[in-house]
Amino acid sequence: MTPRPAKRTELKTLRRRLIQRPESPPWRQTMYDIIFEADTPAGRWFDIGLLIAILASVLFVALETVPDFRQPGYEQLLNTFTAAEWFLTFLFTIEYIMRLLCSRHPLRYAFSFWGIIDLLSVVPSYLTFVIGSSSRSLLTLRSIRLLRVFRVLKLWRMMNEADELSYAIWSARNKIVVFLAVVLVAVTISGALMYHVETLLFNVDEVTHVNPDSHFTSIPQSMYWAIVTMTTVGYGDVVPKTSIGKIISAVLILLGYSLIIVPSGFVSAELVGLRSEENQNREQHPCSVCEVTSHLKDAKYCYRCGNLLQ
Amino acid sequence: MTPRPAKRTELKTLRRRLIQRPESPPWRQTMYDIIFEADTPAGRWFDIGLLIAILASVLFVALETVPDFRQPGYEQLLNTFTAAEWFLTFLFTIEYIMRLLCSRHPLRYAFSFWGIIDLLSVVPSYLTFVIGSSSRSLLTLRSIRLLRVFRVLKLWRMMNEADELSYAIWSARNKIVVFLAVVLVAVTISGALMYHVETLLFNVDEVTHVNPDSHFTSIPQSMYWAIVTMTTVGYGDVVPKTSIGKIISAVLILLGYSLIIVPSGFVSAELVGLRSEENQNREQHPCSVCEVTSHLKDAKYCYRCGNLLQ
Amino acid sequence: MTPRPAKRTELKTLRRRLIQRPESPPWRQTMYDIIFEADTPAGRWFDIGLLIAILASVLFVALETVPDFRQPGYEQLLNTFTAAEWFLTFLFTIEYIMRLLCSRHPLRYAFSFWGIIDLLSVVPSYLTFVIGSSSRSLLTLRSIRLLRVFRVLKLWRMMNEADELSYAIWSARNKIVVFLAVVLVAVTISGALMYHVETLLFNVDEVTHVNPDSHFTSIPQSMYWAIVTMTTVGYGDVVPKTSIGKIISAVLILLGYSLIIVPSGFVSAELVGLRSEENQNREQHPCSVCEVTSHLKDAKYCYRCGNLLQ
Amino acid sequence: MTPRPAKRTELKTLRRRLIQRPESPPWRQTMYDIIFEADTPAGRWFDIGLLIAILASVLFVALETVPDFRQPGYEQLLNTFTAAEWFLTFLFTIEYIMRLLCSRHPLRYAFSFWGIIDLLSVVPSYLTFVIGSSSRSLLTLRSIRLLRVFRVLKLWRMMNEADELSYAIWSARNKIVVFLAVVLVAVTISGALMYHVETLLFNVDEVTHVNPDSHFTSIPQSMYWAIVTMTTVGYGDVVPKTSIGKIISAVLILLGYSLIIVPSGFVSAELVGLRSEENQNREQHPCSVCEVTSHLKDAKYCYRCGNLLQ
Repeated sequence: MTPRPAKRTELKTLRRRLIQRPESPPWRQTMYDIIFEADTPAGRWFDIGLLIAILASVLFVALETVPDFRQPGYEQLLNTFTAAEWFLTFLFTIEYIMRLLCSRHPLRYAFSFWGIIDLLSVVPSYLTFVIGSSSRSLLTLRSIRLLRVFRVLKLWRMMNEADELSYAIWSARNKIVVFLAVVLVAVTISGALMYHVETLLFNVDEVTHVNPDSHFTSIPQSMYWAIVTMTTVGYGDVVPKTSIGKIISAVLILLGYSLIIVPSGFVSAELVGLRSEENQNREQHPCSVCEVTSHLKDAKYCYRCGNLLQ
Repeated sequence: MTPRPAKRTELKTLRRRLIQRPESPPWRQTMYDIIFEADTPAGRWFDIGLLIAILASVLFVALETVPDFRQPGYEQLLNTFTAAEWFLTFLFTIEYIMRLLCSRHPLRYAFSFWGIIDLLSVVPSYLTFVIGSSSRSLLTLRSIRLLRVFRVLKLWRMMNEADELSYAIWSARNKIVVFLAVVLVAVTISGALMYHVETLLFNVDEVTHVNPDSHFTSIPQSMYWAIVTMTTVGYGDVVPKTSIGKIISAVLILLGYSLIIVPSGFVSAELVGLRSEENQNREQHPCSVCEVTSHLKDAKYCYRCGNLLQ
Repeated sequence: MTPRPAKRTELKTLRRRLIQRPESPPWRQTMYDIIFEADTPAGRWFDIGLLIAILASVLFVALETVPDFRQPGYEQLLNTFTAAEWFLTFLFTIEYIMRLLCSRHPLRYAFSFWGIIDLLSVVPSYLTFVIGSSSRSLLTLRSIRLLRVFRVLKLWRMMNEADELSYAIWSARNKIVVFLAVVLVAVTISGALMYHVETLLFNVDEVTHVNPDSHFTSIPQSMYWAIVTMTTVGYGDVVPKTSIGKIISAVLILLGYSLIIVPSGFVSAELVGLRSEENQNREQHPCSVCEVTSHLKDAKYCYRCGNLLQ
Repeated sequence: MTPRPAKRTELKTLRRRLIQRPESPPWRQTMYDIIFEADTPAGRWFDIGLLIAILASVLFVALETVPDFRQPGYEQLLNTFTAAEWFLTFLFTIEYIMRLLCSRHPLRYAFSFWGIIDLLSVVPSYLTFVIGSSSRSLLTLRSIRLLRVFRVLKLWRMMNEADELSYAIWSARNKIVVFLAVVLVAVTISGALMYHVETLLFNVDEVTHVNPDSHFTSIPQSMYWAIVTMTTVGYGDVVPKTSIGKIISAVLILLGYSLIIVPSGFVSAELVGLRSEENQNREQHPCSVCEVTSHLKDAKYCYRCGNLLQ
């Protein structure tokens, strides 16, 4: 369905493989194929196992933080979580060492994006020995393991779709920059305006010169309100209290809503354009003379060199 | 307008009828036509009656749970609800038995999707005799009856439209899987981050090592917050309290919002593509003289050379 | 830009005028042109004045309800509002009588949609004399006057755009019916599910057999929650309290969000389709033989009768 | 990608330059090129510096309002903010004077949009000397400086994208007016309805004739609720309390949601139309041999007959 991104991905995979696959000995090559690739049955099973292990370990990390399990009577369950977590951390450590061993350039792998993520997945657990037991703060870092899910899924072709998506985002990057600038300015100006109206104008305290009932306690707080409102999240923890504030915020809501629906239109238009380009082109049959592709569907002659197309 | 899905549905209906309609005697065939089909006036009236009965019974189930009607003075009204509900349950039981009777293969119907739904619509009411009167929990299961509305509506052609919709969803299934993976990872990582910042970093209690004012009491709770926020629902029962938490959540809101508008763009693009395919669907029959394609749907003559189209 | 809807509107206006414009005497015709039409300068000024009067009167109705103006010290302002409101009601009464006078068939006007709206705009004010002063409830009915803004704007051509919009909605009516059925079923089932989980399963009171902390006090209340959540409004007045309830509601939020973005895609697709049809058709040059319009942009021959197009 | 808007912008820039660039002496011309244009390296560096200065000064203005920095112990930090802010204000004052000096018509610049914004960026700070120290209200006006970010970014071509956006908005202006009228009427009618149901009908206090528990304290407050709800922001500070109010608001939410997704569809359709127009924009040059149009943008040869295109 989306030949171009697929081809690009394949090429990237191939290039990476040529550079990184070890030349010898055979056991390192086999290990590399199992751990880094998913073309062999063994490699595929390794990926499935890794996916389950990652999801399970993140589940344990999440459940450990639930206060209910810290009540008396749950000690054993909590210990089971911790034990399972340590077992999985141990497995991930072995996996990391094996990845280092079977890479052609272990250092290059260690400092690559995925190498660092792999290291960050196991290091926090071991660091708790060094720093002490009050390091729960460090342990939440283990959630970063979940990012590795993407690498596993990538090997399964599904990412063609993500490629199309990232292509659509990439081709709209200029629009995104302009849009973010507009949002930043809109958020700051409306934040300052609401702070001014809600906090400085009405029911002002004699000593502090601010309205003590106002939720808009500062401009950054008002900017937080503006973002929460413009994206239509609307928690309700910061709301206008004065009549003027409500009128202004009603106008700002309508303006902000109009502003924020624009990118959704751009994404739609970009994706519609992408689809119709695909429908109209037949990249799979390039011109035999100038090798230009992307001819119209019913083209007989190359639009570049005028050669008859087969 | 959507010939293909319509045709598919018709074929499915035909096939199902050929297999399931009893061969004899005539009274079973007539009963089958009334209960399972909607081609005859009787079958149509049966469907309308069933639709009203289902809606009424679900309305009674819903109203029975309203606490106002449990106050003194409403006993008679509540009794009326219960009586009407029992009457309708009795009707549904007869309907279920009749469906069993007039099916060619009663067992196959009993274990089909709709057969199980039909059974689940009446069983909870009868089970209360067995378990006792405190089984209100069981009674809410009766809401499952409402699913039967779909079967009734399906017989009325309207579902062509739903077919187009489900076709659009089906052709985007790969994108949906990738998207759900991205959402899952984004929710977990931002949940862990917010739990870390809001609960473990600031104003931490000396004994429990957590911030007692934090709403982000655990990682699962933070993931609930992340989903509620990303979809822009924004209840406000879990909100950041610290300055850093507010800044991070403002950034996460903008990122999450960008993430969540993407599928709406995909659905739009898919539906636009579907429509334009329909518009272009005579292209396979080019004019025999000038070989021009892309005629209008109901064209008789070529718009280029005026030749009669076959 | 949208020739067809425009033409339709014009025809409707013309037909209405032929039927309703009085045949004589001239003063009734002039009056009719001023009050019902907007082609003459006088008629245009009448419309502008009426628009301002309607907006002002609704503003007064709204401000009268503000509790601040009921405090001591504001009596004079409130009296001014009331006086202005009575003056405008008096003007609207004269306008209504004039409309009756200059219609060819006064009774037909009186029972037409706009005739009833015009009557409802003035009657509530007079009714307060009959019923007594505690009839503030009746006075809010005056807001119905605002609907008359549409009639005034309609006369100014702007409604072509609204026609295009209503055409897009109309051509998607089947989809809307199916969609509402799906939403109704989804709301009821998830409402019953959440009521069951939040109120009947956990922390149940011994006497009442319900969880006293639950916000989901009944199935209708849960359906209200489901609608508020699915549309991403998310007030936060009804939120899940139990862990299981939060997990289920997180799943329901994601499902409901997926469900509710579908119609936005349909509206987009419908409008994109409408635009591209307009671009591809040239309705303004019908075939001189068979009078068929909507040829392709670069068509030379009529696609219906094969005649050469000029 | 979007040649037309780009060209338009270029022409505007050129015209402005021809009119405003001073004829002599050279030092004024050089200064003008640095301050007003971005074609020279010096001009580009000036813009980058200005951008950073604006962002920093707005950051200081925002941080000054944070109550935490008003606690004892933060005096020095607050003083640093104030000092930095005064330094930047001083720089902006010099910039303003320089802009006046190097304009061909200083007065025309002073009364232009950007000239007034530039003045408003520095005046509030100086005015505090005149009015006194309690003028924090005045100081928030400095946030208006942020608007100047747009001028700086405009010089960098990026605004082509914003032009496309504003073109899409401009071509939908009629739809926007009709839409705002519909929203205004919907908001007012549903606000009056909810005020009526929630405040005047049920549990009414004997003395005040209103429901004291109602959040809908007046029609303007109810209109605020209607806007917050329709845009799906849903703060939850105003929510229905009565059963009838909840049912009505559930219906209004569904209607309002349907209403508010329409403009997003219009924006999408407008942008899709814009894109496909761009794609088709060689259609006006048909092939001179076979008269086929709709060639690709960069086609040299006809895709039908292979003839060289002019």
